[in-house]
Amino acid sequence: TLIAILPGDGIGPEVTREARRVLEALDLGLRFEEAPVGGAAYRTSGHPLPPETLALADRAAAVLFGAVGDPAFDSLERALRPEQAILGIRKHLGTFANLRPARIFPGLEDASTLKPEVARAIDLVIVRELNGDVYFGAKGRGTTPAGKREGHDLMRYDEDEVRRIARVGFETAAKRRGKLCSVDKANVLETSQLWRDVVMEVAVDYPQVELTHMYVDNAAMQLVRNPGAFDTIVTGNLFGDILSDQASMCVGSIGMLPSAALDGAGKGLYEPIHGSAPDIAGQGKANPCAAILSAAMLLRHSLGQDAAADRVEAAVAAALGRELRTPDMGGDATTAAMGEAVLAGL
Amino acid sequence: TLIAILPGDGIGPEVTREARRVLEALDLGLRFEEAPVGGAAYRTSGHPLPPETLALADRAAAVLFGAVGDPAFDSLERALRPEQAILGIRKHLGTFANLRPARIFPGLEDASTLKPEVARAIDLVIVRELNGDVYFGAKGRGTTPAGKREGHDLMRYDEDEVRRIARVGFETAAKRRGKLCSVDKANVLETSQLWRDVVMEVAVDYPQVELTHMYVDNAAMQLVRNPGAFDTIVTGNLFGDILSDQASMCVGSIGMLPSAALDGAGKGLYEPIHGSAPDIAGQGKANPCAAILSAAMLLRHSLGQDAAADRVEAAVAAALGRELRTPDMGGDATTAAMGEAVLAGL
Ligand SMILES: CC(C)[C@H](C(=O)O)[C@@H](O)C(=O)O
Ligand SMILES: CC(C)[C@H](C(=O)O)[C@@H](O)C(=O)O
Repeated sequence: TLIAILPGDGIGPEVTREARRVLEALDLGLRFEEAPVGGAAYRTSGHPLPPETLALADRAAAVLFGAVGDPAFDSLERALRPEQAILGIRKHLGTFANLRPARIFPGLEDASTLKPEVARAIDLVIVRELNGDVYFGAKGRGTTPAGKREGHDLMRYDEDEVRRIARVGFETAAKRRGKLCSVDKANVLETSQLWRDVVMEVAVDYPQVELTHMYVDNAAMQLVRNPGAFDTIVTGNLFGDILSDQASMCVGSIGMLPSAALDGAGKGLYEPIHGSAPDIAGQGKANPCAAILSAAMLLRHSLGQDAAADRVEAAVAAALGRELRTPDMGGDATTAAMGEAVLAGL
Repeated sequence: TLIAILPGDGIGPEVTREARRVLEALDLGLRFEEAPVGGAAYRTSGHPLPPETLALADRAAAVLFGAVGDPAFDSLERALRPEQAILGIRKHLGTFANLRPARIFPGLEDASTLKPEVARAIDLVIVRELNGDVYFGAKGRGTTPAGKREGHDLMRYDEDEVRRIARVGFETAAKRRGKLCSVDKANVLETSQLWRDVVMEVAVDYPQVELTHMYVDNAAMQLVRNPGAFDTIVTGNLFGDILSDQASMCVGSIGMLPSAALDGAGKGLYEPIHGSAPDIAGQGKANPCAAILSAAMLLRHSLGQDAAADRVEAAVAAALGRELRTPDMGGDATTAAMGEAVLAGL
């Protein structure tokens, strides 16, 4: 089974290295091939997402992705910037369903800015639509009749796009505590009204799931006020982007949180929620746990290796239980030391 | 000087009543006229924003607004729903600049879910654009060529719209700690790239203000991680909606937070950030402080009565200092008792 590793920029190579070592140690007969992406690919090929990288992703059973983003390329036109690679590959692979779990690992309450009793209650997953919304609608710059510069981006969904992500939301909730909260801005957006209509239509197939609706501004508030009340959240690409970053910090460190982008047919792209963090790149300060936990999601969702995934997650918890902390969690363990500890706990 | 009072729905009438009493007690020779808005207006006139209500708002020096929203009207078409009244009046009055300060009152650390040392450091203001963005772009429902239902909303800004709100952002920051953070999603949105370009152009007129840029997902994260690092945030209508609700909960209760919507020429609409809270309407449980502090902003921004505004704010702080808490802050004081206490402290 071929796993594509796309390390990318900044701390991407450091954290995917540890994740790869963990996957190798499991002895599942996996093969690995690496290809450049983001700024790293732009440097060598003039494009952040070269055809060979896409070809490797196509051939592989799953993709382990590091992070993209490099301030050296901030002045390039948008289509050539490193971040476009992640948007391009998500769209190319058709990975429309982004699972972003957020729960606090025991012992990490100190690293959260939330009061310990609030942080401890968090165990939620955000199901974010990943192939549509204002990310992929018609966009451009222009001039108004009065000669003024303008910019525009079309927010848009059709019923099929909403239905398939709604199903993932309900399926996810059904396997968890049975509560699905659909987040939109239906008091302002027509897109959100279609969203709400379709989610309610899909709901009839899942009588065992309790469905609620929440406006995105209220959801951002409730994620601070009472995050423990959420089980599964389903939402669009833009709102999911914002809420999942917010939730990630509630559990102490963005360095702990993995994600899966699924195409609904077994193929997936797995990446830490954190970015390329150029300020700490190459210093051994990055927390590899998010990448390692992303590898666990890969085992679970693309390879059906649930037992192996459980082992990896338990090894991460055990390493944290031994008080090992990278700087993002207030400690001074190195990336490699953290990776070693997880390997040792397998 | 005529002040228009639009109490609206739910707890709106209860909280504006206390705010009006505070304004009356200041003996500034103000006159007051009330008109219905939202669900309350729909009940009597069949429209959430009747022409007489707009006419009163036009005649008045400033508008004190309660809240709109009533679940009884949730099934009406969007244009007739109570919430449309607030969008309509903001647009009608041309109040494009929404100031949403968030700071924690001494003694309210218990009510915040953030650790006390994190909550105590919060003293920020969000300057939210209020007349454009995906709120007011072309929107609708339709059918795709394949016969599928779709919904769309155009996100859009032109340079004049960005420039005028950027100026308010820089002016606000210049009067505070001199730090302005512009929040956008320029790695994905063309609208945001125009936003960023224009903000940088305006920056040359404010060399004394330190300007930074942040992506909205990162801003949502930093508002949890280190909210004390923010001074002034300037952002678009949609991102401002989400971030200001999030920030409001960081300081303990949305029941404490006022807002001002300004047209840049002295006219303003002042409203608590909280909504109509139909679940507690009519029970004397609502916190009137947000409405009272909105009245203080009215004194400051529309009437130039800074000393009177200071007195009102000090009276609110004094009432809290006497351990008076409405239920949203974990106590059992009534709306009227809280109002009385502020009056007594004037
Ligand atoms: C890098 C950026 C384009 C991306 C997004 O907005 O989707 C990132 O924030 C994420 O959430 O994966
Ligand atoms: C009621 C709603 C339309 C409104 C908005 O989104 O602007 C509210 O959330 C606000 O922030 O004042």
